[in-house]
Amino acid sequence: MNRIRVNLDRRLSASYDIHIGNGILDRMALILAKGNWAARWFVVSDDAVAGLHGGRVLAALAGAGLRAGMLTVPPGEGAKTVSTCLGLAEDLLERDADRASGLIALGGGVIGDVTGFLASIYMRGLPLVQIPTTLLAQVDSSIGGKTGVDTGAGKNLLGTFHQPKAVFIDLAFLETLPQREFTSGLAEIVKYGIIEDPDLLAALEDNAGALQGRNPAVLERVVSSSCRIKKGIVEIDETEKGLRRILNFGHTVGHAVETESGYAVSHGEAVAMGMAAAVVISERLRYLSAEDRDRIESAIERMGLPRRVPRDLDAGGILARMGKDKKKEDGRIHFVLLKKPGMPFVNGGVPLELVRETIEAMQT
Amino acid sequence: MNRIRVNLDRRLSASYDIHIGNGILDRMALILAKGNWAARWFVVSDDAVAGLHGGRVLAALAGAGLRAGMLTVPPGEGAKTVSTCLGLAEDLLERDADRASGLIALGGGVIGDVTGFLASIYMRGLPLVQIPTTLLAQVDSSIGGKTGVDTGAGKNLLGTFHQPKAVFIDLAFLETLPQREFTSGLAEIVKYGIIEDPDLLAALEDNAGALQGRNPAVLERVVSSSCRIKKGIVEIDETEKGLRRILNFGHTVGHAVETESGYAVSHGEAVAMGMAAAVVISERLRYLSAEDRDRIESAIERMGLPRRVPRDLDAGGILARMGKDKKKEDGRIHFVLLKKPGMPFVNGGVPLELVRETIEAMQT
Repeated sequence: MNRIRVNLDRRLSASYDIHIGNGILDRMALILAKGNWAARWFVVSDDAVAGLHGGRVLAALAGAGLRAGMLTVPPGEGAKTVSTCLGLAEDLLERDADRASGLIALGGGVIGDVTGFLASIYMRGLPLVQIPTTLLAQVDSSIGGKTGVDTGAGKNLLGTFHQPKAVFIDLAFLETLPQREFTSGLAEIVKYGIIEDPDLLAALEDNAGALQGRNPAVLERVVSSSCRIKKGIVEIDETEKGLRRILNFGHTVGHAVETESGYAVSHGEAVAMGMAAAVVISERLRYLSAEDRDRIESAIERMGLPRRVPRDLDAGGILARMGKDKKKEDGRIHFVLLKKPGMPFVNGGVPLELVRETIEAMQT
Repeated sequence: MNRIRVNLDRRLSASYDIHIGNGILDRMALILAKGNWAARWFVVSDDAVAGLHGGRVLAALAGAGLRAGMLTVPPGEGAKTVSTCLGLAEDLLERDADRASGLIALGGGVIGDVTGFLASIYMRGLPLVQIPTTLLAQVDSSIGGKTGVDTGAGKNLLGTFHQPKAVFIDLAFLETLPQREFTSGLAEIVKYGIIEDPDLLAALEDNAGALQGRNPAVLERVVSSSCRIKKGIVEIDETEKGLRRILNFGHTVGHAVETESGYAVSHGEAVAMGMAAAVVISERLRYLSAEDRDRIESAIERMGLPRRVPRDLDAGGILARMGKDKKKEDGRIHFVLLKKPGMPFVNGGVPLELVRETIEAMQT
């Protein structure tokens, strides 16, 4: 038997910059022109975001001498499907997009996921730029290269890791964000405080009012801190094999609640409930003090986030959905628990009965 | 404006071994067990190949103590679609495949492409092993990580670069290969000889009879040489940005003929015609001597491959399809020409009229 070695050990240069500021679209366009990543850009957005901001983004790109067009999909979670992706691929082909083209995701998490996935599979990969317009996307989904779309059979069943060339976080987009969506985004920021940065958690507690009032200086500070935490974790664990799992803090119960509610509960609200459940479980298993549990519960509330699970959701249904979470390996479910703020850990053996009790107690 | 750098410059370890031999399935299974790339394997094949070889592959895997199941799709080019892929993804989910599972592609180019693409997008990526069963897949598509599927809108419109963990080339599979498919595979071997290795070209000329008779020793030698050439090119240009384009020698006209014929002309036959066209054009543009052109034409014929384009195909139709080849960038078409055996180059400016004349002359 012959053996031929294919040597593909090499330096991978997938590094990129996250740019954060207020009203940075013109500078975004200049950086794209300088980066020279594509001969032509296609902005992918949803009809709502495109209506609010699409014109300004295209104007900024044109101002820097870049060729750019716009593709839109309907707004909402329902668009995060493989068929949306296939439709966009056909649109791209019709408009002669080729391997020298690049995609710009302009929107929230759904747009980032769909556009990122499309960029990773269209003609074996196009350069991607993220311009997240929601708080949630700015501090979470736009960073780290995770993409995913739903099929009829499962949520996020198909996806890739496809790092962007750059991320532009323009805080000006937050001005037009509906209140509920803004508050929802705060959940991931609270999460970063809990799992990684007690100083951030304290800053959130001290500035709860200013933050909810969308004070630009406070926003820039906590968004930057959040991005720094996310990027630090992504750097260590690009493809979610280990450390990155702590980012799922609050998400095991959260995803299940979100799905069981048929998305009536938003992602951020569901994560807030999931974090509340995780700290209760952490306390019940004697990892976390009652004082820390209490502090985190009130931090969640001060952000305007819910920590009680809606009574009309079936606890059994939520539990059943946790088993289907795709993060399991070999049938085990990974549950991220907490020892104290800044000290999360993965526990594979939380008794399901305890999870059920916790959820039911949160519904009374 | 803040700038946060996401540092993803790192050593990428995507190297892997190509194992070549006769009757190597048991050793394949041992290497998989040792590699420990997945807790559970799913063999993806087509109904024809699975019927011939599936049982032996599963038995070998079981013999090494590995958990493995089988998924099949209908045989033929028609299965190389995104909907085949989506169907397989649902099958995988139904059978509880998770991120600890791996895929084994058992079959020809279509199976390798579909399975490779699926492995790159299912739950953000599964480990992949290639067991190519056709000569064409053994010397070409199983090596290099290119995957692709068709959509209604375009051939290979969606695809990725996803390197396998290992490739196992068992020459024993070639014994059951239909004659036309075997001969078709010889086209890519001739191509390697032409673009990279005059010694291989000479070996093909000297052993034409033994090769067509599927002499195991000769086969092992030319298959190994071919794999070595392909892997050398892939190592230098993993994502087809430059050098790898020379592998498209014969493919610009070839793809167009293949498609225009509605796949009545096989890939290898079409590539043979495309190579014949490329050397005629190379001579007409005074890059290649008449002697070398003649030598290559007769090498093609001695392999039992056609070098004339079927008369019932419309030259205009073939030309129109060349413009749609996805390898263009900025509207230019890359045509790989030849200075002499072992000296290919990319020429972006071949007059379309000359291509038309050449094709029409090849039809008389």
